[in-house]
Amino acid sequence: MTNPNRPFTDQERQGLYRAIHERRDVRSQFLPDPIPADVLARLLTAAHHAPSVGFMQPWDFIVIDSTEVRQSVLDIFEEENRKAADNYTGERNTQYRSLKLQGILESPINLCITCDRSRGGTHVLGRNSIVETDLFSTCLAVQNLWLAARAEGIGVGWVSILDQQKLANTLNLPQQVYPLAYLCLGYVSEFLDQPELQAKGWRSRLPIEELVHGNGWGQPQENLELKAALAALKEQERN
Amino acid sequence: MTNPNRPFTDQERQGLYRAIHERRDVRSQFLPDPIPADVLARLLTAAHHAPSVGFMQPWDFIVIDSTEVRQSVLDIFEEENRKAADNYTGERNTQYRSLKLQGILESPINLCITCDRSRGGTHVLGRNSIVETDLFSTCLAVQNLWLAARAEGIGVGWVSILDQQKLANTLNLPQQVYPLAYLCLGYVSEFLDQPELQAKGWRSRLPIEELVHGNGWGQPQENLELKAALAALKEQERN
Repeated sequence: MTNPNRPFTDQERQGLYRAIHERRDVRSQFLPDPIPADVLARLLTAAHHAPSVGFMQPWDFIVIDSTEVRQSVLDIFEEENRKAADNYTGERNTQYRSLKLQGILESPINLCITCDRSRGGTHVLGRNSIVETDLFSTCLAVQNLWLAARAEGIGVGWVSILDQQKLANTLNLPQQVYPLAYLCLGYVSEFLDQPELQAKGWRSRLPIEELVHGNGWGQPQENLELKAALAALKEQERN
Repeated sequence: MTNPNRPFTDQERQGLYRAIHERRDVRSQFLPDPIPADVLARLLTAAHHAPSVGFMQPWDFIVIDSTEVRQSVLDIFEEENRKAADNYTGERNTQYRSLKLQGILESPINLCITCDRSRGGTHVLGRNSIVETDLFSTCLAVQNLWLAARAEGIGVGWVSILDQQKLANTLNLPQQVYPLAYLCLGYVSEFLDQPELQAKGWRSRLPIEELVHGNGWGQPQENLELKAALAALKEQERN
């Protein structure tokens, strides 16, 4: 490994911020092109280098290309999605039904990132007070992979409308292994310039200045320079 | 925003991978130097651009520089850490007690990233089947911030040895707001070249080839090119 203390160049830093700001939750733009093995290896290795409580590394990666398995997962999605649609009435129901919420068959690879809740034994360092920190760690691995994929030009979609028990059965997961994230991966025809749910009028980005508090909930942020800097970034985004 | 579909340059991609591979959970190397407002604004904006279920954006950011608040949080940590230490006996107990597990007072800024479990109303799109997806989304925001911080030369440590109810009380969180991550942020004297728990012999990185399955749990990964590519990356890391 190179010296980890060399400062990032402007381009390197820009690369990180590009991945963060241009990442999308992809459902509709997948191309069937295969993901080369060396690229997929970089994505999995990126996920494996996420932080984890007590260096627990609770994750496993189930790489799914079987059409049969993907079809089973799609069936689970469709059943759950019918129930979800029933939560909305009128125009919102019509709008919900018009949204495409998964690319399970169109993407060349599905990836289930799991969390083994028993890994590392009974007493995992740092997991004494909050037992869910293993799940949280696995999420960090998901985000590493999501960003690395974006930098490789690969879109990722997280399918969360799934019955986890049925998914676990389909993938033969042991009792203690939780299927945390079911992801679709593939090259895309385009990355949208804003989140799809925003573009389609479902929900907008919240104003960041309302989300930043000072020293306690609801206390104003008294650092005026920080407020100005947040506003400047938001303005820049709009342009 | 620039055209989101321009491929990443090699340097940009390298920047993302550097942040992923050189990120550390920092406890011991914090410098007192203040974080400039424009840098902090970039980190918070990066977090705010994480993916979230149904574009829920359940996060808030409590920026803590008050010594009094930080001291209260440190008291909560110390009480929990005494309990945690009791889980280990003999040499492992001695080793546990020798580890520094937080930099609450040494870092110039603490940041609590919370999850408002009621945001977006009763039916958040995609949150019907798995109610914890709001917490998972907030974790993705944490990782965005963690990586952006690394690219800015700023270390982050996640303090998970805390009683969440006491922490919520200290920060005056409303009932429905969960203090998901308590982070310490600051410039550092150095980024270690491997995770501290590994360097100190607490636990090693797991072999990635044992974590990759094909099409179902425990099924071998039959893509030989993928296996070779994973091995090559691991070899590269070692050099």
